[in-house]
Amino acid sequence: MKEFYMSLALKEAWKYQFLTYPNPAVGCVILDKNNQILSIKAHEKQGEAHAELNAIKEALKLLKPEFNFPKEPNALHEFILTNHQKLLQNATAFVTLEPCAHQGKTPPCAKLFSTLEFKKVFVSVKDENQIASGGAEFLRQNGILVEMGILEKEGRELLKPFLKWQKGAFKLFKLALSLNGSALGKFVSNETSRIYAHQIRSIIDLLVVGGGTLRKDRPILDSRLCGGKAPNLCILSHQNLESFDKTISAFNVKNRQIFTQIPSNAKFLMYEGGAEFLKSFKNQMDMFLIFHNAKFNQEENVKLDLELRPLFKGNFKEDSYGIYELL
Amino acid sequence: MKEFYMSLALKEAWKYQFLTYPNPAVGCVILDKNNQILSIKAHEKQGEAHAELNAIKEALKLLKPEFNFPKEPNALHEFILTNHQKLLQNATAFVTLEPCAHQGKTPPCAKLFSTLEFKKVFVSVKDENQIASGGAEFLRQNGILVEMGILEKEGRELLKPFLKWQKGAFKLFKLALSLNGSALGKFVSNETSRIYAHQIRSIIDLLVVGGGTLRKDRPILDSRLCGGKAPNLCILSHQNLESFDKTISAFNVKNRQIFTQIPSNAKFLMYEGGAEFLKSFKNQMDMFLIFHNAKFNQEENVKLDLELRPLFKGNFKEDSYGIYELL
Repeated sequence: MKEFYMSLALKEAWKYQFLTYPNPAVGCVILDKNNQILSIKAHEKQGEAHAELNAIKEALKLLKPEFNFPKEPNALHEFILTNHQKLLQNATAFVTLEPCAHQGKTPPCAKLFSTLEFKKVFVSVKDENQIASGGAEFLRQNGILVEMGILEKEGRELLKPFLKWQKGAFKLFKLALSLNGSALGKFVSNETSRIYAHQIRSIIDLLVVGGGTLRKDRPILDSRLCGGKAPNLCILSHQNLESFDKTISAFNVKNRQIFTQIPSNAKFLMYEGGAEFLKSFKNQMDMFLIFHNAKFNQEENVKLDLELRPLFKGNFKEDSYGIYELL
Repeated sequence: MKEFYMSLALKEAWKYQFLTYPNPAVGCVILDKNNQILSIKAHEKQGEAHAELNAIKEALKLLKPEFNFPKEPNALHEFILTNHQKLLQNATAFVTLEPCAHQGKTPPCAKLFSTLEFKKVFVSVKDENQIASGGAEFLRQNGILVEMGILEKEGRELLKPFLKWQKGAFKLFKLALSLNGSALGKFVSNETSRIYAHQIRSIIDLLVVGGGTLRKDRPILDSRLCGGKAPNLCILSHQNLESFDKTISAFNVKNRQIFTQIPSNAKFLMYEGGAEFLKSFKNQMDMFLIFHNAKFNQEENVKLDLELRPLFKGNFKEDSYGIYELL
């Protein structure tokens, strides 16, 4: 069953893939001393609780609904260390990444498990990060059983975007298709899919689009559906930026920087466009985020040769989406 | 958490959707007295164990690996009634359909729960079948807590094919597409997807194809990938059957009946074909089984107007598939 619980943690983490930038996507499942599932949670966003803290909070909430948890991660951490009442003594955790042992923006998660007297912690992937690693060793020194390498291949796939943007730049291509492969039409994806895309836009360093799309669709390319920050823009075009109609909405977003070349300090870039843009840049991409709605239409499909390997598949109501890498 | 456990039972049942014909697809999850998950199983095929029996067997196997269970469902049922050692006393079950209370091809599942002294049985959908129903009442009379209606909407969706073929004919359209919506090419889907399609072929009453496909692809249309029975064929064509080249493989399958009109006694029919065939029959279909591989190509897509509603999404390695109904 340990692979089953780890798969729940991995799946939960994938739901927040990209959104945790610059942090890694991490998931955590907690079982009580009798192996009853208490919580399945993930790290959702930089600056918010780590997956372990989130899952422990959720587990305690189930056991003590009267707890009034503070929202801020440091205060939450402190609250739990003070008020846990040994409610999670001999509990088990499944974490997709080795719990951190260092004081970062939030206190170390390994400390949480030891103070709360967990019995066992299963880990998918060892943390190779020099600063944060050492969690497993810390846990063992504190008498907690640690088993590493549960669904390790899957755990490594979850970490791929993080490892890429940590070392250099991570490039994601976003494409929205109908069930029969057409990228045409204004609202191909439903609102839930577009909210996810806007959430990604709100945390990336750069949104990269083609000049043609900008002229034709005159989009605003912001993050309004999630109330987030509009991304800086890089417009790749054969034509001079001066020649563009400046009443196009994308040019009139407050505090937006606009580039015509990729700035070297951009670590997480999302490319958005249709068939031609994909054809031009497919081989430079690290991953592809492809939405499919549930409709056939009469439009032409995106035609190009491209073999992908799915890493995750999810659903947003009637839409589905896949996160792929080049085969 | 009860919705979570029921969703696991539903998902497991969907994996065997269509394959249980003429029985309904049913899933079952079993928790021990401390709410630890012991098993997640489904009814897989007519004549084999019901979901409840399968899940109970799996749970006991986990608790007593030395048990040597008979395979035949009646013998398995008897073995469990005799050898359970109260190992599942106070256990909880989540079943997508009210457990049967009648002696059918196998003994009643409700009896299993009462003899093994389960504490509680959660049910998604009440069994409206006159013969099999009464399971909840039987359980309650035997002191077992019963809670009906957990994820009932989802439970009813799972039963749709069964309710349709029970009352008349259930028509499924199978379509295999590339990620960009083309139905062209010989092996669009991978072997795992095709095995599922062959499993369905092996249990349907009738495979319906167009004359054009037959002439062009010269397929055999059997169930060789799962070693099952080749389905009877209905060839819908404007041309007389006499005019077909009889060396086409499909005509040379042993014990295959070939029709040119849908026989009225066919209860489960699968339509297979491409864009034109789908266009002709889409409005008569009850459901659509659509496979997508993970490749873009240079081929034309399937063009038609068709809005669908997904009921289930699954994956077969790099392929994904959806089961849809008309919106």
